Amino acid sequence: MPAPDDFFSLPDPDRDLASRLVQGERRALARAITLAESTRPDHQIRARSLLNELLPYTGKSIRLGISGVPGVGKSTFIEALGNYVINRGHRLAVLAIDPSSSVSGGSILGDKTRMETLCQRDEAFIRPSPSSGSLGGVAEKTREAMLLCEAAGFDVIFVETVGVGQSETAVAGMVDLFALLQLPNAGDDLQAIKKGIVEMADMVAINKADIDPSAAQFCRAQWQSALALLRPASPHWRPPVITLSAAKKEGLADFWDAVERYRDTLSPTGEFEEKRRLQAADWMWQIIHATLVQCFQRHPAVKDALPGVTQKVASGCITPSAAASSLLAAAHIFEIQES
Amino acid sequence: MPAPDDFFSLPDPDRDLASRLVQGERRALARAITLAESTRPDHQIRARSLLNELLPYTGKSIRLGISGVPGVGKSTFIEALGNYVINRGHRLAVLAIDPSSSVSGGSILGDKTRMETLCQRDEAFIRPSPSSGSLGGVAEKTREAMLLCEAAGFDVIFVETVGVGQSETAVAGMVDLFALLQLPNAGDDLQAIKKGIVEMADMVAINKADIDPSAAQFCRAQWQSALALLRPASPHWRPPVITLSAAKKEGLADFWDAVERYRDTLSPTGEFEEKRRLQAADWMWQIIHATLVQCFQRHPAVKDALPGVTQKVASGCITPSAAASSLLAAAHIFEIQES
Repeated sequence: MPAPDDFFSLPDPDRDLASRLVQGERRALARAITLAESTRPDHQIRARSLLNELLPYTGKSIRLGISGVPGVGKSTFIEALGNYVINRGHRLAVLAIDPSSSVSGGSILGDKTRMETLCQRDEAFIRPSPSSGSLGGVAEKTREAMLLCEAAGFDVIFVETVGVGQSETAVAGMVDLFALLQLPNAGDDLQAIKKGIVEMADMVAINKADIDPSAAQFCRAQWQSALALLRPASPHWRPPVITLSAAKKEGLADFWDAVERYRDTLSPTGEFEEKRRLQAADWMWQIIHATLVQCFQRHPAVKDALPGVTQKVASGCITPSAAASSLLAAAHIFEIQES
Repeated sequence: MPAPDDFFSLPDPDRDLASRLVQGERRALARAITLAESTRPDHQIRARSLLNELLPYTGKSIRLGISGVPGVGKSTFIEALGNYVINRGHRLAVLAIDPSSSVSGGSILGDKTRMETLCQRDEAFIRPSPSSGSLGGVAEKTREAMLLCEAAGFDVIFVETVGVGQSETAVAGMVDLFALLQLPNAGDDLQAIKKGIVEMADMVAINKADIDPSAAQFCRAQWQSALALLRPASPHWRPPVITLSAAKKEGLADFWDAVERYRDTLSPTGEFEEKRRLQAADWMWQIIHATLVQCFQRHPAVKDALPGVTQKVASGCITPSAAASSLLAAAHIFEIQES
């Protein structure tokens, strides 16, 4: 690993920023994340160089995704588990993905009073969800913030998301382990969770288990039989279902033991690193796909033709493949091959 | 609806083909599907015109997707249910999606002896999976075959798929109702089904329930509690779990009643038609996405750079966003906007 003063390829202010960041200086980390979140083209270029220089310092953390609908007790859980892992000697960064935050003004982690004890600790770095634009943009900035936190020596990363919208997929695509927080009343309509989420879970935690322990045990059994119907992502890992009470700080050791067991089980088989490599490749292709579609949709001929063609497809006047062909022809898209 | 001799915009042989097809002539239907499946550019152009002319005759069927792993008794089930619906006065087309058939020589429906009684009936039309190329290509040709069958007056369509690979997603994206066929031993490793499938199911059927009725009831309860954890796709439809025995022809009425109840419940709310409209729009965008990515990947500069860039991302030398930018720059992709 290069010495902290080795960032010779960076321009002067950013060389200093990088040095201070890898020494774990919180203000440097916050400034670097702000730079990465900026939409100004010059900031984007600087942020990209900074990130590439810092890449050798990244990756040495365990990345934990935490999802759960409002009311499940997510902040209390993060505060309790966060203090638990810090007490075990870790440095913790808490990030969030909330694409609605540009509308709501930042609902997740925005109100720091929600995690009073955690945000007073030197070993914790808490950053609200970036509030700009689309889910793709928010997710990309959160990924970059995660790398910067790792470069600053934070060895445990929590990425929080609300159980609404498509943000869980984005979080599951950037963490090592995706945990689903639930209430002990599975099967109720209130509980019913969005399609696609169950199958992303590497782990399920039933919070507020102290209120009605027998309901929590019943819920745990329901989850175990539901998860048993699914083919596990790895032959070496069956998603565990853990009951806990964040408010009473009960079950936190069980939860964290499962996280460490996940890493210790899948690291020797190579699956832990392989998952990260696949996530990086997916991330690259996601950006490429999004950009290609964006360019296509912005093409003047496509813009002109799209409303009419969409209407014809919806009303069954032309087949979807004929519609696609006519739009692609309008954009002269096949000419890319020759250019 | 135009009279069958109204296909004036088509060239002579295809005008005749269209007329005979809408009169329900099986040989004309088979020829039209062969035309649509052909990869010859002139056949493709003819097939597209034919399909567009026939579109007003399509859509008047109920489209049922049937998935299940090998051994679940899918052929026996399709034969039994197929005879049941024909006896109720329907005309039935059975199609299949099996992207592996180009390798295996057509495993699904390829062996017509598997459905002996069904393939002898005039009211049934059975067509094996197209065997050409990628899943996307196979799915597109199956969608087109489905439209052609509808134009030929088949008012019930089964689209069969094996419970492996990504083919279920393709089938779920083209049918009104996606049914999952299971064995009564849920929870076993043998049973464990692929992630993502459970949540596509509009209906689950447990076959071979006669062998051990109590195991079948237990399996049914497990499925019901698993499905209860998921938010349903429609507020008006909770996926039912039905036990049956295809070999003994038991439970077929329950199954078909559920299919009709699905249509009769979601038609008045507009959800039935809305689902088809969304599927058509999705299909159009899927073709556009696939074509854009294909053009991108075939671009000489991308072809040159991709292996090196992919390697750098995998080994953590550059960030995925920097990698995406460099590939997009190599393809001059932003120039599409201006062209």
